[in-house]
Amino acid sequence: MSGVVGIYSKERNNVSNIIYYGLYALQHRGQVSTGIAVNNNGFVDYFKDLGLVHEVFPKETMERLRGNIGIGHIRYATTGDTTTVNAQPLVVGYRKGALALAHDGAVVNFEKLRDGLEDQGAIFQSELDTEVIANLIARYHKDNIEDAIIKALDDINGTYGLVIMTTDKLIGARDQYGVKSLSIGKLGEDYILASETCAFDTIGAEFIRDVEPGEIVVIDENGLESIRRKSYDKKLCLFEIIYFARPDSKLDNKSIYLSRIEAGKQLVVESPVDGDIVIGAPDSGTIPAIGYAEGSKIPYAEGLIKNRYVGRTFIQPTQELREQGVRIKLNVLKENVEGKRVILVDDSIVRGTTIKRTIEMIKNAGAKEIHVRISSPPVLHPCYLGMDTPTRENLIAAQMSKEEIRKLIGADSLEYLSLEGLLKAAGGCEFCTGCLDGNYPIHKE
Amino acid sequence: MSGVVGIYSKERNNVSNIIYYGLYALQHRGQVSTGIAVNNNGFVDYFKDLGLVHEVFPKETMERLRGNIGIGHIRYATTGDTTTVNAQPLVVGYRKGALALAHDGAVVNFEKLRDGLEDQGAIFQSELDTEVIANLIARYHKDNIEDAIIKALDDINGTYGLVIMTTDKLIGARDQYGVKSLSIGKLGEDYILASETCAFDTIGAEFIRDVEPGEIVVIDENGLESIRRKSYDKKLCLFEIIYFARPDSKLDNKSIYLSRIEAGKQLVVESPVDGDIVIGAPDSGTIPAIGYAEGSKIPYAEGLIKNRYVGRTFIQPTQELREQGVRIKLNVLKENVEGKRVILVDDSIVRGTTIKRTIEMIKNAGAKEIHVRISSPPVLHPCYLGMDTPTRENLIAAQMSKEEIRKLIGADSLEYLSLEGLLKAAGGCEFCTGCLDGNYPIHKE
Amino acid sequence: MSGVVGIYSKERNNVSNIIYYGLYALQHRGQVSTGIAVNNNGFVDYFKDLGLVHEVFPKETMERLRGNIGIGHIRYATTGDTTTVNAQPLVVGYRKGALALAHDGAVVNFEKLRDGLEDQGAIFQSELDTEVIANLIARYHKDNIEDAIIKALDDINGTYGLVIMTTDKLIGARDQYGVKSLSIGKLGEDYILASETCAFDTIGAEFIRDVEPGEIVVIDENGLESIRRKSYDKKLCLFEIIYFARPDSKLDNKSIYLSRIEAGKQLVVESPVDGDIVIGAPDSGTIPAIGYAEGSKIPYAEGLIKNRYVGRTFIQPTQELREQGVRIKLNVLKENVEGKRVILVDDSIVRGTTIKRTIEMIKNAGAKEIHVRISSPPVLHPCYLGMDTPTRENLIAAQMSKEEIRKLIGADSLEYLSLEGLLKAAGGCEFCTGCLDGNYPIHKE
Amino acid sequence: MSGVVGIYSKERNNVSNIIYYGLYALQHRGQVSTGIAVNNNGFVDYFKDLGLVHEVFPKETMERLRGNIGIGHIRYATTGDTTTVNAQPLVVGYRKGALALAHDGAVVNFEKLRDGLEDQGAIFQSELDTEVIANLIARYHKDNIEDAIIKALDDINGTYGLVIMTTDKLIGARDQYGVKSLSIGKLGEDYILASETCAFDTIGAEFIRDVEPGEIVVIDENGLESIRRKSYDKKLCLFEIIYFARPDSKLDNKSIYLSRIEAGKQLVVESPVDGDIVIGAPDSGTIPAIGYAEGSKIPYAEGLIKNRYVGRTFIQPTQELREQGVRIKLNVLKENVEGKRVILVDDSIVRGTTIKRTIEMIKNAGAKEIHVRISSPPVLHPCYLGMDTPTRENLIAAQMSKEEIRKLIGADSLEYLSLEGLLKAAGGCEFCTGCLDGNYPIHKE
Repeated sequence: MSGVVGIYSKERNNVSNIIYYGLYALQHRGQVSTGIAVNNNGFVDYFKDLGLVHEVFPKETMERLRGNIGIGHIRYATTGDTTTVNAQPLVVGYRKGALALAHDGAVVNFEKLRDGLEDQGAIFQSELDTEVIANLIARYHKDNIEDAIIKALDDINGTYGLVIMTTDKLIGARDQYGVKSLSIGKLGEDYILASETCAFDTIGAEFIRDVEPGEIVVIDENGLESIRRKSYDKKLCLFEIIYFARPDSKLDNKSIYLSRIEAGKQLVVESPVDGDIVIGAPDSGTIPAIGYAEGSKIPYAEGLIKNRYVGRTFIQPTQELREQGVRIKLNVLKENVEGKRVILVDDSIVRGTTIKRTIEMIKNAGAKEIHVRISSPPVLHPCYLGMDTPTRENLIAAQMSKEEIRKLIGADSLEYLSLEGLLKAAGGCEFCTGCLDGNYPIHKE
Repeated sequence: MSGVVGIYSKERNNVSNIIYYGLYALQHRGQVSTGIAVNNNGFVDYFKDLGLVHEVFPKETMERLRGNIGIGHIRYATTGDTTTVNAQPLVVGYRKGALALAHDGAVVNFEKLRDGLEDQGAIFQSELDTEVIANLIARYHKDNIEDAIIKALDDINGTYGLVIMTTDKLIGARDQYGVKSLSIGKLGEDYILASETCAFDTIGAEFIRDVEPGEIVVIDENGLESIRRKSYDKKLCLFEIIYFARPDSKLDNKSIYLSRIEAGKQLVVESPVDGDIVIGAPDSGTIPAIGYAEGSKIPYAEGLIKNRYVGRTFIQPTQELREQGVRIKLNVLKENVEGKRVILVDDSIVRGTTIKRTIEMIKNAGAKEIHVRISSPPVLHPCYLGMDTPTRENLIAAQMSKEEIRKLIGADSLEYLSLEGLLKAAGGCEFCTGCLDGNYPIHKE
Repeated sequence: MSGVVGIYSKERNNVSNIIYYGLYALQHRGQVSTGIAVNNNGFVDYFKDLGLVHEVFPKETMERLRGNIGIGHIRYATTGDTTTVNAQPLVVGYRKGALALAHDGAVVNFEKLRDGLEDQGAIFQSELDTEVIANLIARYHKDNIEDAIIKALDDINGTYGLVIMTTDKLIGARDQYGVKSLSIGKLGEDYILASETCAFDTIGAEFIRDVEPGEIVVIDENGLESIRRKSYDKKLCLFEIIYFARPDSKLDNKSIYLSRIEAGKQLVVESPVDGDIVIGAPDSGTIPAIGYAEGSKIPYAEGLIKNRYVGRTFIQPTQELREQGVRIKLNVLKENVEGKRVILVDDSIVRGTTIKRTIEMIKNAGAKEIHVRISSPPVLHPCYLGMDTPTRENLIAAQMSKEEIRKLIGADSLEYLSLEGLLKAAGGCEFCTGCLDGNYPIHKE
Repeated sequence: MSGVVGIYSKERNNVSNIIYYGLYALQHRGQVSTGIAVNNNGFVDYFKDLGLVHEVFPKETMERLRGNIGIGHIRYATTGDTTTVNAQPLVVGYRKGALALAHDGAVVNFEKLRDGLEDQGAIFQSELDTEVIANLIARYHKDNIEDAIIKALDDINGTYGLVIMTTDKLIGARDQYGVKSLSIGKLGEDYILASETCAFDTIGAEFIRDVEPGEIVVIDENGLESIRRKSYDKKLCLFEIIYFARPDSKLDNKSIYLSRIEAGKQLVVESPVDGDIVIGAPDSGTIPAIGYAEGSKIPYAEGLIKNRYVGRTFIQPTQELREQGVRIKLNVLKENVEGKRVILVDDSIVRGTTIKRTIEMIKNAGAKEIHVRISSPPVLHPCYLGMDTPTRENLIAAQMSKEEIRKLIGADSLEYLSLEGLLKAAGGCEFCTGCLDGNYPIHKE
């Protein structure tokens, strides 16, 4: 999972500022590294580094990054990302000049493509799928850039919300199933592309429409032109709805907030339970918990208080202190749970470790009963299309029965929302449900 | 406003770790600077700097700070704090050896005391009240430390939650009205003092009791001994309940969370209004909003989404971008407010600028009506007892009528909770209400 | 100009430490960026950044860089080097695995080669010649690595002191004219390659021999094997002798220190002058000045004192302060020059700005006469073989006559050492004299 | 040992820049911490931290420090200086307003004075002598500032080159024996005080005269006024001449450079020896070596090359690497010493460890004989007047005979300059020779 932003302006030469705030709005999509590339009359400059947007870009760097076209990227943490080499945008020179790419997604046939390119003598300087895409585009340099991109994407079996900057164009592309999101906005006369619509709100831009599955949009001084490649039934990643996207975003015209409220209400319909209060597991359980409370008429309350000041360099407590009960990030609101039948709502259970600790804390504070309600089905399959889920061994629902999990986490009852219920809450079937039922639109070869 | 922590251990020589997590739990009480002083068999070491706890104390510094007695401090931002000179604890040498002090509060007769000390030839190296306290204690060095502290505090007209570390004791003191809070906890055999009980929860300690108004507690190898000075009716700062303390703390045995919920409910009783949803102004309006929703049976919803990643070094948007509508910290949930009669609950209005911007944002998203309900009375008087309120000129309620404020902020209606209602919610009269009604327990001379 | 180091060890797995001290010994060859790549049983790790060796490599980074084969690089400042993208070693993946290259030199047919590679679809991520070399080697991946390197170097028209690390070998190569230096040393059983022999002294290694022009040395578990490509009469860069190399190095068995002393003595023979003291322009004029003093029997003295503490982040004085005579780096020793006839020796005049300021300072201190003696001929031609000389417009000797320069810099007399004299001092004709007489061994196409 | 600078300007409000360059010129006097305090129309601001001048003062800090009066300080490393608390200037508030002090020297009766002040209730926040001086001045606040300073200095038994900034004056004071140096310069109409005259050259100021022993100079809008306290025969620290001061400074009108040259020549007269070359131990042996060469007519040469790039954060080599002969800071010029009879000149031997390693290195490079000549007498007594010499146990000359030292360091011969010879070279008897002959002008009580 990553986040991308792109902008083409006829007038401004400081689009990097707008990208900065856009990336900042997408910071929840990744915290490991970030970068911005700009085009200043054909001269491409960029900066990228490990860290959050406000850490990586001090004022002086932003002042250096001048230009009227620009793209930016936010990268999710994956193991071993200790150098900047995997930070994006990827900026390269090829036959036609400079090319910058920012990519959210995964190339399933990555190794095969890389092997083929290496056979022809290519060298690789990162572990990024994106470097394969750049090489493919460069291979087709005799075509115009639009055709080169089409041919490159035709070679690729995978998912992408992709923004590309050439010396005079901003180009966006979405994969043929629309697994990855990409939306179009406008700020005055300037076109903006972003992974989520909350980026438009943050920078004061107007949402225009989503890029369609298989669509390529080309933005230059003549405005926006659309190229339609072959596309299939839309299969937007359902985890964007459940967990990943910001609640104030709309993806493919669906409100994330309302879908999550609805999932909470649907959960009442499917798995009602008697209780005194409904609380959410911070932060992602809050919205479905509000929905559950509304649906069940049981009062909503805050049960756990989060410390807002945890930083990345925070010193982890020693084993000794952990055993003494030191609680760095969360504290339970004893007066809300003591002697109560607590309904604890969360959006999903992946490994099960966090909810186990949370339940323990609530129990220690004196709760009489704890009923866990999850606003999505069990996660059974690892994702190879760009979401950072653990391997099958670490997916608790792939290893244990519901009753076993209930016992392990120490709940008095445990119920998941059904896939049907979730799709109903999300308002349709246009979703990739691979991690829930194994039906991936794109297959490994 | 500040936060203090102290610990005396017979066994551990790494109390600095426990102080670290304790300070971290109190981080909401101040973000400008922090420090820790420890006593390692009579050798006092310390470190303090500008920044948050996790920024100021990297691992190497923590490893250096070894000892079995320690105190820590968190400092609130006040104008001009650009150097570390005002960071606490204040560590000094005097006739009897080393002395370290961490102080939450304000010395009302500060200037007079400082003038008197300067007349006797004293020099001052900071702008801290605390430096006056240290000088006074040193003046009485011929007495034992307990008597020296008593005499020094007798000279002082002011408020304090104070922790003092000598070479072999940890001493805590609370002012004679108990305006400032200070609680006693235990971690195994070790005594801990802290401004709020959430610090005990965070480090896994057990809450014992509050230090009483006028009480001095002396902790050494013989355990805890209490000294009672003259005290008055308790007058805990009411703003701790309204805004300042963490909701999971209990001060003088009152739950902050429940008091705020109750204030929201009381507000329904006093100022009901018809509406479609109740939302809270982030973050401090959330709890009274939940209370208001519960009391009014109108659904609670999230109306504003906060970006969790704003850092202190974040680049502020230019005037141009601000006019274009860039919204860095907050975004409105359009689908929740569009076409709705919105009841917006906040804990207080001080300057009025933030709520004005918030209302504008909600209106632009299409709300039909906006009714503002404030879970505390108007703030009419600047505080000189240690809370960082603006001057009278900047207190909007001291300058304008309720109706004028309503117009200015653009609300359809505006109501405050009465002082009686608030005291009822807070469960008693043992509060300083100076900023609300001018009745300060301690007078300026 | 750059510096390179390589080491292959059978036993050690911390060769990065040895590279660290080796690079540090070569720090005079470049201060803009540095990097180290190591091979730990086939796993290649590296780190590179802008800055000096001791700035770029803190202890934690060094501890991370474990392995038994390693290479390092020091980069000279060139305009626009504000990102790490041009730092070396260049580490890439290709058909056969990982490849790391560190290169001192210049590829004259760089653009033609890059164009050809781009025609075949290659992308480039830096402005480094080295990236072209890596691409060429990858093109020949069907051959074994030695043959691939030979073919790649055959494609190249240029100069190089090159070290290459594969997953199991360390390979060194010197260009066919030996314009660039590369020497072989041994530390116990381990082979080391370095641009200058002072690196061997620093790490306690023994000098074995120089790599010969056109030679490729391949070091692996079987020891060192030599491959001889076609070579020409040796043409070592003469500026290494004059200015660039450290005085305690030997290049192609010539002592830099003695050559410079000899050049000073030769200058007495060619251009004697009456004077009271001989002083050197710091730092590079010191050694020829000692030689001049010895040859002329005129006392040597220090005339200018250099501040040893100038850092890269030093604040430059304002124009106003500069006009008031602020002298940051140098101060004149008034008592040594006042009323004296001063012979000022420097190694070369490139732009003429530094010596002009120096002479002015000496004059202001009361010198009666200033006679400038330069221990090399006028620099007339820009270098395109890897030395960072200015363009023709900025080479003062290419723009003005000797008499014009003398007037401009304010000297009472000015003489250069002849090319014959310099070659005599350097002990032979095996030098590239391109920048002095235009005779470059390698031609632009 | 430390360095101080002060400036009073009628016109400029950026005197901090001038102090910056002045401190930078005095950087050789201390590298552990530095600070600048300025007075901007009665408002005193300051900044101080651990590090070198160019590290501690980035551009933004310098821009903040505006004012027309200012003082600065450079601090020498002493054990345990890991916090900024001992950095100077010391800035305090007292009865009359702000006071800033920067002090080079030592208060011999420090403990007695501190005890007395503590008896009266004073607290201390550092280990600085300077804090005692500030307290004493504050004790006398009923007098005008000049009288208060006189009384304070009358209480002190010790040495000082002291600059004091009040809200409207710059005051300089030198101890009654003139052990510490302090000179007066002028930059246009502005008066400047500095520990050494090289600071005046660096900032383009003119040297006026030295502050006399026992003199206090008061600079304000009316110009400079001199107050003469009782003074004694001048006893300037002789180690300033031998080692500490910069060669381009004049202290009490004596040229440091010429004194050192003269000491080298005198050494030839007292201890001639046959040899092939004279070399200096870097850096402080260079000048006496030039003098020895000139006096003996034996050629001067560079024998050891120093790496100019060693930084404070440089990683120290492991024991293993050290045994293998890694040489970080120095390399020997083999061709200069091989087969030669080398005369090695150094300015002093304190512990003997450095010269031992140097001789070993020269021997390993093949020198036939090594004759050591030291341009000062043996250091026999620890200094308690402000020079940072080791304790008696670590002064090699206090523990061993000359012959024993010769054997230990591995020299073929060893001779020191006599005290008479040194005083002759230094041009008089106005020196403190305590560390050489035990005759200290100021006694411990």
